Amino acid sequence: MQGHAHQAILSSVAAKLRAERPLVHNITNFVVMNPTANALLAIGASPAMAHAVEEVADFTPHARALVVNIGTLDSPFVAGMHLAVKTANRHGVPWLLDPVGAGATPYRTRVATELAAQGPAIIRGNAGEIIALAGASGALTKGVDSLAQSEAALEAARDLAARSGALVAVTGAVDYVVSTYETLAVPGGHLMSQSVTGTGCMTSAIIGACLAVAPPREAALAGLSFMKCAAEIAADQSAGPGRFAVALIDALHHLALAASPEL
Amino acid sequence: MQGHAHQAILSSVAAKLRAERPLVHNITNFVVMNPTANALLAIGASPAMAHAVEEVADFTPHARALVVNIGTLDSPFVAGMHLAVKTANRHGVPWLLDPVGAGATPYRTRVATELAAQGPAIIRGNAGEIIALAGASGALTKGVDSLAQSEAALEAARDLAARSGALVAVTGAVDYVVSTYETLAVPGGHLMSQSVTGTGCMTSAIIGACLAVAPPREAALAGLSFMKCAAEIAADQSAGPGRFAVALIDALHHLALAASPEL
Amino acid sequence: MQGHAHQAILSSVAAKLRAERPLVHNITNFVVMNPTANALLAIGASPAMAHAVEEVADFTPHARALVVNIGTLDSPFVAGMHLAVKTANRHGVPWLLDPVGAGATPYRTRVATELAAQGPAIIRGNAGEIIALAGASGALTKGVDSLAQSEAALEAARDLAARSGALVAVTGAVDYVVSTYETLAVPGGHLMSQSVTGTGCMTSAIIGACLAVAPPREAALAGLSFMKCAAEIAADQSAGPGRFAVALIDALHHLALAASPEL
Repeated sequence: MQGHAHQAILSSVAAKLRAERPLVHNITNFVVMNPTANALLAIGASPAMAHAVEEVADFTPHARALVVNIGTLDSPFVAGMHLAVKTANRHGVPWLLDPVGAGATPYRTRVATELAAQGPAIIRGNAGEIIALAGASGALTKGVDSLAQSEAALEAARDLAARSGALVAVTGAVDYVVSTYETLAVPGGHLMSQSVTGTGCMTSAIIGACLAVAPPREAALAGLSFMKCAAEIAADQSAGPGRFAVALIDALHHLALAASPEL
Repeated sequence: MQGHAHQAILSSVAAKLRAERPLVHNITNFVVMNPTANALLAIGASPAMAHAVEEVADFTPHARALVVNIGTLDSPFVAGMHLAVKTANRHGVPWLLDPVGAGATPYRTRVATELAAQGPAIIRGNAGEIIALAGASGALTKGVDSLAQSEAALEAARDLAARSGALVAVTGAVDYVVSTYETLAVPGGHLMSQSVTGTGCMTSAIIGACLAVAPPREAALAGLSFMKCAAEIAADQSAGPGRFAVALIDALHHLALAASPEL
Repeated sequence: MQGHAHQAILSSVAAKLRAERPLVHNITNFVVMNPTANALLAIGASPAMAHAVEEVADFTPHARALVVNIGTLDSPFVAGMHLAVKTANRHGVPWLLDPVGAGATPYRTRVATELAAQGPAIIRGNAGEIIALAGASGALTKGVDSLAQSEAALEAARDLAARSGALVAVTGAVDYVVSTYETLAVPGGHLMSQSVTGTGCMTSAIIGACLAVAPPREAALAGLSFMKCAAEIAADQSAGPGRFAVALIDALHHLALAASPEL
């Protein structure tokens, strides 16, 4: 199984998740709230969804990680995101940014850029989102238009990492974890993931949960491996994307169990 | 099957649901809207989701029960909840409160407390939520901190029932239906329910649907039994929480069919 | 398979969808966002959900079709819908209206009526919604109260088509595509669809996706046939509505594959 390239890190992080059941605060989009919560439960985390400015400043300090996903953003949600991020920074809660659709509209790109400047531990996006965010952040050190998209994305990810201080996870056929000093590949996974909505958002949430129990580099590798391995298992069992989405949750659950059989 | 402890009440209420297909108005959280609607359809009710202050006063009177769940509350939703509750009270529509996360933030606790004071027929929560709500409502007649959580929850539930006039359903490994004069246990169910998001919210919605065709005591016992029995059946058929969530809907559907085979 | 009455049109439209993967902009309700996105992915379209007034004017022009569904409407979403519709009209993006619950409250009927007057290419609703919308739009040319509901719906659909200029799709046991000059039946499908929330909304979204690659008449026939055929296949494989909902997505996926095996 290709997704097992980082098996030792996955096992270690998964075991900690199941032992500690960390509370993970999610401000995410309407489309994926349900499968995101189920994915986090499957790996042993305790998900919570709360977005209102009336309560996030009281809620975030109790969480061990925060995930901010701008998928269906609007003004009230963006206000909640900014307040949660400020609170997380003040209380030392590590947080992840998923800049869904950065580049699609000026509003979305601006919100993503503003959040990326607030000190996320990790930014997770696809090639197009990372390129758009790096460009809008003024992080790009040279033109990437002449490069193939995968090359351009790694270039943009390195620049974005340097500018934001975040580790950058770029997901695609092969996933990459990019910092200023290294680029690690996470191979494996399955094409079927692209036929199910929110698998990228679930990946972000799972990395965020790992961030509750591990430093960014381990969290990113473990989270990406979780999804790659689960996708391979689920695809083997599924005739189509409907059954795949169901089997994916079960595969995450069994991967988590396998990592800490004694619990 | 342990969940069958209240089989006669379950059968009677389930048969009424399928015969009458009552409209159940839900103002609930984003995470569970989809599985909640599917659970209500599975047992034969007609679910509707509408939250806007622009229309709830016109909508609630047509419903035969109202379910208010504060899971992802914010100001606009809370305004809609208050208006729907006021309308329900004026029109004699029975309603259930699910104080999701009461105790987690002051805002959430305050909203739950204000709603609990408006005359719900039933309040359904887990031990922590019921203790928090009873405490914030000034209902507790003595300190519960020295008690084990399950004992404290029953004590809090009795006090909350006395203060609010509501029947209180406390869910956990064993569920309890608590009024000022009796405490009934509903055993059974399956641990797998804890690995699927929204099973508590679905339980509330199902009890709410039962409230459309039965008085609170019967509605609570039938609703809790529905979920306990369905969880036992689904767990038998499922290798993990993904397949369990799917099988749970089918189990609810078959329990409903079995209760009224002639329809 | 009854749902195959319009097999040639379904195959042709499905092949175009898979070849072109059109971006379909959805402003839809919270209950169905997830299964709607999965249904659109299953048939080969690229779904996107964005509702905020801050961005829809920048987003809609990039889409090849727009779907507006008022299921859980409130003021901010309605503002986004109107702006998206205006933008779609300016940029020649065809759009579909799903007037969910028209007739249930004055607010809902008013919003549906205002949107229906903005030039949708297609309106898709059930009999009650189409009758309510035609009545509120002042489109009805004679009383329909004395008619059976299916007759009244076709009468109302013809009047609504004449008034709005839209093709009107009325869904039920048999679906109809109604214009001022013809009424086409789409038979088939399965009753189980009524036990799963959002199958009507998914039908609308699928027709909307077809509108990205085909004119309204072909889009409506292809979209309705997609859902009818998929429901028949899924029902054959499913013991209840939970498994049916999962199998429905797989069936859509396989119908799309079968239409363009060479891709």
